[in-house]
Amino acid sequence: MAAHPRPLAAADVPVRQSSVRAHNLALVLRQVAESPDPMSRAAVATATGLTRATVSALVDDLIAGALLAEVEPAPRTGAGRPAAGLILNPAGPAALGLEINVDYLAGCVVDLTGTVRHRLVEHADQRPAGARAALAALGELAGRLRTRAAADGLDVAGAAVAVPGLVAADGLIPVAPNLGWQDVPAAALLGAVPALAGVPITLDNEANLAALGELRAGSGARSFVHVSGEIGIGAGIVLDGVLYRGVHGWSGEIGHLPVHPDGPPCRCGGTGCLELYAGQEAILRAAGAPALDGLDLAAPATRAALAAAGSALGIALAAVVNLLDVDTVVLGGGYAPLLPGLRASLEQELRRRVLTANLAPVSLRPATLGADAAMRGAADSVIRAVHADPAAWLSRT
Amino acid sequence: MAAHPRPLAAADVPVRQSSVRAHNLALVLRQVAESPDPMSRAAVATATGLTRATVSALVDDLIAGALLAEVEPAPRTGAGRPAAGLILNPAGPAALGLEINVDYLAGCVVDLTGTVRHRLVEHADQRPAGARAALAALGELAGRLRTRAAADGLDVAGAAVAVPGLVAADGLIPVAPNLGWQDVPAAALLGAVPALAGVPITLDNEANLAALGELRAGSGARSFVHVSGEIGIGAGIVLDGVLYRGVHGWSGEIGHLPVHPDGPPCRCGGTGCLELYAGQEAILRAAGAPALDGLDLAAPATRAALAAAGSALGIALAAVVNLLDVDTVVLGGGYAPLLPGLRASLEQELRRRVLTANLAPVSLRPATLGADAAMRGAADSVIRAVHADPAAWLSRT
Repeated sequence: MAAHPRPLAAADVPVRQSSVRAHNLALVLRQVAESPDPMSRAAVATATGLTRATVSALVDDLIAGALLAEVEPAPRTGAGRPAAGLILNPAGPAALGLEINVDYLAGCVVDLTGTVRHRLVEHADQRPAGARAALAALGELAGRLRTRAAADGLDVAGAAVAVPGLVAADGLIPVAPNLGWQDVPAAALLGAVPALAGVPITLDNEANLAALGELRAGSGARSFVHVSGEIGIGAGIVLDGVLYRGVHGWSGEIGHLPVHPDGPPCRCGGTGCLELYAGQEAILRAAGAPALDGLDLAAPATRAALAAAGSALGIALAAVVNLLDVDTVVLGGGYAPLLPGLRASLEQELRRRVLTANLAPVSLRPATLGADAAMRGAADSVIRAVHADPAAWLSRT
Repeated sequence: MAAHPRPLAAADVPVRQSSVRAHNLALVLRQVAESPDPMSRAAVATATGLTRATVSALVDDLIAGALLAEVEPAPRTGAGRPAAGLILNPAGPAALGLEINVDYLAGCVVDLTGTVRHRLVEHADQRPAGARAALAALGELAGRLRTRAAADGLDVAGAAVAVPGLVAADGLIPVAPNLGWQDVPAAALLGAVPALAGVPITLDNEANLAALGELRAGSGARSFVHVSGEIGIGAGIVLDGVLYRGVHGWSGEIGHLPVHPDGPPCRCGGTGCLELYAGQEAILRAAGAPALDGLDLAAPATRAALAAAGSALGIALAAVVNLLDVDTVVLGGGYAPLLPGLRASLEQELRRRVLTANLAPVSLRPATLGADAAMRGAADSVIRAVHADPAAWLSRT
């Protein structure tokens, strides 16, 4: 997306007519999407610098493709008859946001306006059954969501899947350490699920997608590190509103930062990794509790367990802040409800270990979306792709 | 600088004529700068899409401002009389690249073509005298360099100063831990040096500038972490050819990553920081040697000292790679000559602790510029500013 959107004029050669139209369709759609109120065609013309005739032709196409809808204006006082207003079409193309994690499967249907229309979460340890069975179960869950979307009259434009591991460009998962997966052709396996026939599928790391979810739904911070605390721990790094992915898309593996390098072995092959001290299984073991749901935050054993986890998190996050100079840390996933118990020891380590702690104190806050962040970010990535290139959607319909 | 340079046409309203000229001056200068051979005006016109008449007017201005020079073509076989060629003017505006570090002052004069014309290094511990005296000594060194530049007929367009600490936007150094400096108004103090009268001065962190120096002069890698090993340790993070600065410009403080969190106290207020294990003073103390120059890399004590330092560096760099997904690490400053002794233990830690070590092995290499990288990067930042906005330079002359 251009930093400074402007209409393309014929003088901007060499641009083919079809790409001028694609650019201008996106420009019109963005104006309507960013407007808090229904927007008249005249207002779109003013905002974009396009002629009214051009805007009307583009709007007609967007309405025909179910991307925009026209609504009657609210009655208002004052002179003049108000024009009909344009809005994003809530019955337009929708997205499937899916997540597979170590101990749950989840998915949601999000419509073009960003509203969550359906949501399903199934708790079950995904490790024993293996990759094929887990992905088949996710495909089955996705099928149920697609059926519900269809019952609402929603056409699914695409599905994005959050996975707790590395994702290669071809939709292969070379390694997902906490699932015990290696070289799983996840995109191909999901693409073969009949219920997903015809739906483009993309995969991304769950911490990346959770950070994107938080970016859209969160407090408005533009630069932050979002830490997803599940059985594994991942970080999504957002800098000035852009997700930092690294060379291969494998950034943010905070769970394997060596916190106590001489510590016990980790399943990744290293020793003393953060996950061994601050992962959910470590916290529950130290607290003597079977599940996060049953955790009594006031119990002495829980308090000690969370203080120890917070200290390990603080050591790792001090490294993150010293390296990246990001002054907002968002704790998401399973960490969000635990923050009261984690905060004191975590902040103590940050104050001690961050070189700029006095100059720019690090702000620590719970994620807005909690455990839903990854699937919401996944769905959002599909919706944003439609927004960014409505012409591609129109050519499919 | 635009990702896809193209001439601005009048239809690109609303752009004022003066900024069209500024854009096109930079476009012409860049074409000549990036050409391996002298370039004719006709070739510039072809490459830029500007008319020959426009190119000639712009070239005349650039020649008058000493940014371009015209050279006679080399005799060549074949038909036709070859045209005169344009080159960057080696007698054009030059840059002062300066560095203040814990145990030395350094500076260089670099001309518009990037050639180092003069270089001065003075070894002396800068800590005892304090900030004002150290900056006065740097100003004196800068004055000598400016005199030498003037003797070559070179006009100094600007000076950039590399400092081993944090730099705030106003040229204040809030903290330089290894110098023991706090809240030093470095830009103002240097600006008051008579020998630097009329020379715009900028400051930046030495690790940032060293990484930029390596980016220009190095092996062509576009994404890497450059680690400067002096008494302090800093990192410059370059991603796809762009220096990653962080929210305040304070990224890359790798020297204060907690390597052994329960270790001894660091002067930063933390404990077990990387500098305590892999800084030059730690290496020399462990090796029982007074200075890096006298270090016998084959001596058992030195080998053990370097192995220990390499292991600590490997732990910290494993955190860097797990977070940033960068697969090239460049060891610069004092580390470059020590790499043979550091490599084995460093690589062992990377292999053990980097989650993607098997998928994308980390490449480790010595910096091309060694200890000169920061002052070269500083000078380069001035030269690149002239290249990016020649109109600003022309308006000064």
